[in-house]
Amino acid sequence: MSNTVDQVDVLIIGAGPAGLTAANCFNGSNRLRVRVIDKKSGTVETGKADGLKSISLEVLDTFGIGDTIRNESHRVEEVVLWEPDGQGGVERSMTIADRVPELGKPREMTLDQGRIEHHLVANLERHGNVEISWQTQPVDLQINHRQAENPLAYPITVMMKDSGQETSQTQLIQARYVIACDGARSWTRKHLKIPLRGDLTDSTWGVMDAVPKTNFPDIRKVCVVHSAQGTIMAVPRERKLVRFYIAMDGTGLDVPTALSQKTLTVDHVVNAARSIFHPYTFEVGEVAWWSAYQVGQRVADNFSRNDRVFLAGDAVHTHSPKAGQGMNTSIQDAYNIGWKLRFHLEQKCSKSLLASYEQERRPIAQQLINFDREYLELFANPNLQFDEFLNAYQKAMRFTTGIGIRYAPSLIVQSPPMEEKTDNTAKAFAPGMRLPDFQMVNQADGVPTTLYHRMTMNGQFRLLVFAGDIAIQPVYHRLLEFGHWLTDFLRVNPGIETIIVHSSKRAEIELMDLPDVFHPWNDADGWDYWRVYADDESYHDGHGQAYQRCGIDRDDGCVVLMRPDGYASLICRMEQTSQISTFFEGLSLGIPEKVSFSARL
Amino acid sequence: MSNTVDQVDVLIIGAGPAGLTAANCFNGSNRLRVRVIDKKSGTVETGKADGLKSISLEVLDTFGIGDTIRNESHRVEEVVLWEPDGQGGVERSMTIADRVPELGKPREMTLDQGRIEHHLVANLERHGNVEISWQTQPVDLQINHRQAENPLAYPITVMMKDSGQETSQTQLIQARYVIACDGARSWTRKHLKIPLRGDLTDSTWGVMDAVPKTNFPDIRKVCVVHSAQGTIMAVPRERKLVRFYIAMDGTGLDVPTALSQKTLTVDHVVNAARSIFHPYTFEVGEVAWWSAYQVGQRVADNFSRNDRVFLAGDAVHTHSPKAGQGMNTSIQDAYNIGWKLRFHLEQKCSKSLLASYEQERRPIAQQLINFDREYLELFANPNLQFDEFLNAYQKAMRFTTGIGIRYAPSLIVQSPPMEEKTDNTAKAFAPGMRLPDFQMVNQADGVPTTLYHRMTMNGQFRLLVFAGDIAIQPVYHRLLEFGHWLTDFLRVNPGIETIIVHSSKRAEIELMDLPDVFHPWNDADGWDYWRVYADDESYHDGHGQAYQRCGIDRDDGCVVLMRPDGYASLICRMEQTSQISTFFEGLSLGIPEKVSFSARL
Repeated sequence: MSNTVDQVDVLIIGAGPAGLTAANCFNGSNRLRVRVIDKKSGTVETGKADGLKSISLEVLDTFGIGDTIRNESHRVEEVVLWEPDGQGGVERSMTIADRVPELGKPREMTLDQGRIEHHLVANLERHGNVEISWQTQPVDLQINHRQAENPLAYPITVMMKDSGQETSQTQLIQARYVIACDGARSWTRKHLKIPLRGDLTDSTWGVMDAVPKTNFPDIRKVCVVHSAQGTIMAVPRERKLVRFYIAMDGTGLDVPTALSQKTLTVDHVVNAARSIFHPYTFEVGEVAWWSAYQVGQRVADNFSRNDRVFLAGDAVHTHSPKAGQGMNTSIQDAYNIGWKLRFHLEQKCSKSLLASYEQERRPIAQQLINFDREYLELFANPNLQFDEFLNAYQKAMRFTTGIGIRYAPSLIVQSPPMEEKTDNTAKAFAPGMRLPDFQMVNQADGVPTTLYHRMTMNGQFRLLVFAGDIAIQPVYHRLLEFGHWLTDFLRVNPGIETIIVHSSKRAEIELMDLPDVFHPWNDADGWDYWRVYADDESYHDGHGQAYQRCGIDRDDGCVVLMRPDGYASLICRMEQTSQISTFFEGLSLGIPEKVSFSARL
Repeated sequence: MSNTVDQVDVLIIGAGPAGLTAANCFNGSNRLRVRVIDKKSGTVETGKADGLKSISLEVLDTFGIGDTIRNESHRVEEVVLWEPDGQGGVERSMTIADRVPELGKPREMTLDQGRIEHHLVANLERHGNVEISWQTQPVDLQINHRQAENPLAYPITVMMKDSGQETSQTQLIQARYVIACDGARSWTRKHLKIPLRGDLTDSTWGVMDAVPKTNFPDIRKVCVVHSAQGTIMAVPRERKLVRFYIAMDGTGLDVPTALSQKTLTVDHVVNAARSIFHPYTFEVGEVAWWSAYQVGQRVADNFSRNDRVFLAGDAVHTHSPKAGQGMNTSIQDAYNIGWKLRFHLEQKCSKSLLASYEQERRPIAQQLINFDREYLELFANPNLQFDEFLNAYQKAMRFTTGIGIRYAPSLIVQSPPMEEKTDNTAKAFAPGMRLPDFQMVNQADGVPTTLYHRMTMNGQFRLLVFAGDIAIQPVYHRLLEFGHWLTDFLRVNPGIETIIVHSSKRAEIELMDLPDVFHPWNDADGWDYWRVYADDESYHDGHGQAYQRCGIDRDDGCVVLMRPDGYASLICRMEQTSQISTFFEGLSLGIPEKVSFSARL
């Protein structure tokens, strides 16, 4: 029986990496009431996902916890391929650097999912405006369709119960919006009868986190070992752990043919690994976690219902864990819907913004399934040609960075080609693509930072002004003109932060000589010293080469309107301010309540 | 009345940066009972020390918390000097990079002392073998001199009481050793009647942590402003804070002449700052902390009593805070006595090791006082010549790194010149000096790390084998010979970890081809993959140039016996193993209990 009703702006179902990412998008939003529920009694202890790609770490940087997580993680530096040696054993065939040069930093780190969740939860607690209720599961969810278009309504009613007790006691919660991140067996997806398309593959896989005791020489590198007996992939982890993935239907493995996911034991997994590593020895010390699974490659037909209930992560796409894309894609899904809901609720913008979630993320899930199908075939094929594997693996490394993602034109992505667009803008990315995480040097104090360390998730668009070489008078005057326009523009659109990255020598520029609008005054704190950066040599960390990495002319510059999630909405010349005005008119912003900015220092 | 007695191996009095550093030297030492008491109710909230030099961060790296503290800190990148402009105002005269190239990294970071203490305490809690009792102060301390030479005795008896209550209830604690880090007004020093030599200077200083509201252009840089009105030094900090130091007796300041430390108010400090910054505006927002002080430049006659009670940090030396050396020197003192006591208690070595604490650290304190006297004169002198200031400041930056420290020959520092010493050893440092914190690449996984990230404080000596280019057969064979000797040596001296840094291309070396003694087997975890490193290019972080930084020949190499605190005890050629044996015979190690190694991963 229900006895209490809580009203929230956003209810997040599921506190795994996706749900916690969505929740962290609301950090500092004291005007919105956000709750997270999860049927588990706390964060996971061991196992599950473990690979964090650079794009996910950039998301964590915008939450302020990227470096904390990097400190605990193991960096992946190289990948080694092993092939049958023709004499019943295996031999090393190639070592590949795990490096994608465009990133300018490591592509992947590994850390137990439980630790990642721990830091996401700790960060919510630090901000204190999102409430988590563990051991709480939904048992009913109703959408009042008559209220679905009413901006003031709480049209969703969710009935919840304590998942740890046999009780008929329930609680009601009324929500404006729901984000369901409740995993591959999503209660929400089933309840809403949203179909998953795709198939289970035939392969049964074993996965294990263990401390290996072996004389196999590459056990602390990512290695893919194809032997006549089968295939194994090993990924080193924090502490002394290694993650192993083993196709349990390798023809030469001493495993019962009819072995299914349910009858597999950890001994089967260890024995299969030993067969594949032969003639090297293989035993395990601590086994931190193990599991068996069949790979399903499926995508949900819809990622939302009425643009009121949104599904993200494993709830709407499943695939093999081997490319380490599950948690990473889930984090990106959640980040996408997280900022959109926050922006919509805080800035009262057009509701069609919310439709862009499915428009942007469902194609990514489909690409991922296609990628995964090819990738899995690589591993399942014992007769693979060496070059095929190498090419596919290098392609896969690039794919997993997300560098290639380009969202389609929409309300929040300017359609190219714009007739006003000239050659003098950013050549290395385009509207719908994510900006590279370049280093830049703070004008006021000389401290280098990176773009995503600076771009704290606050649900706001930002104008990133590549002002060019403002030590040159005409270029400086162009910035002054832009500043005049900006001063007027911000009266109407106060919720937009402006960041300058100039290409002058930092020593030639005085922050206080720039118009106030670029280092705004605050009666409590004085001037803002965290808005103007130089693309210049730093004292201790080299040169970020931001202009070069973005393909922007150092003399001429450009303006990038950056979405809260780091994707470019539009790119224009500094004179093309009307494009920016037009963009925000299209978003139909309401009259927002006062929003305070605070740079994360 | 006493009613309980606790027996501990080490009692640490005072839980500031020094006491907590000493305590962290015992992390993982489950055989020793260590307690910390402090009369405060917890770590400090605001103010006090705030500058962390690279050498202190390296100490924190060996505790595993350096990066966590770096993440929160503000990096100091440049220093700006301002002089009177001859028209009643000030003008910028020079900008200096805050960089000491030999360090290869930033020289200084700033962070509130309370946060540093927080992380030191959290780390003790994580390890769980040191107990902290807050709100507990000593009221009596007696040394039983008849027992002072008995290795099994607990000759020190300390009576303690609850500092928060008016009570006569006391507790007794018996300790083998005491480390007193109870600050400039040290109860222990006074109780033991150890004199401080030196003087109070005449100057009264104001110090303040505040958020400045000013149009002074260099407020987010370290700046030293000499105006006709007086002198101010400003040091930027985390968040929006700036630390200000102001000589309150500037001739032109609107401050009563007879103003003493006791009658000074925060308004006096703000007004003095405003006068000096004139014609720039100066107001303050949040004032997080402020204080007034007279500088005392004093050193205690003794740093220990009977080599049973040791004093460290402000308890034995005081000076001006302006060079940011107080907390840093205190951390180094505590680190020095911390490892020595742990080593002595765990390895049953000659007690004369403990006498080296005062022998090594008291001269450092005296150097610091001399340095501080010159440094303070710089700031107090309104008629300073510009070049004088610049030279002195640059010299001071080098001094504060600790690069120049060289401990005198002793039981634990080999006396040069050794007749066997040849030119083929380390040219850039010598016995008694600390090794530079170079980057090296793990042979097994390709992950770069730095020396002090790897050298977890565990109270043990380490053999750092610069093995040279072991891809060359004769060089490799020399390593094999060394390995044979080492295998025998470790049977007698098991508590010594060996780390190899070779100069070959990493890809040309197979870890498993090296003798087992260099990657020892453990039945629980298999082989040790964290003992062999390459001085080679890393995939993402460049080349550490370890051999070059140490002045070691890449073909020939050498062996460095490294003390637990990173200072070199001896440096020899790989054939000169008898020097190593002789060194440990001199330490008169007892038969230690079994010690387990574990690499921090």
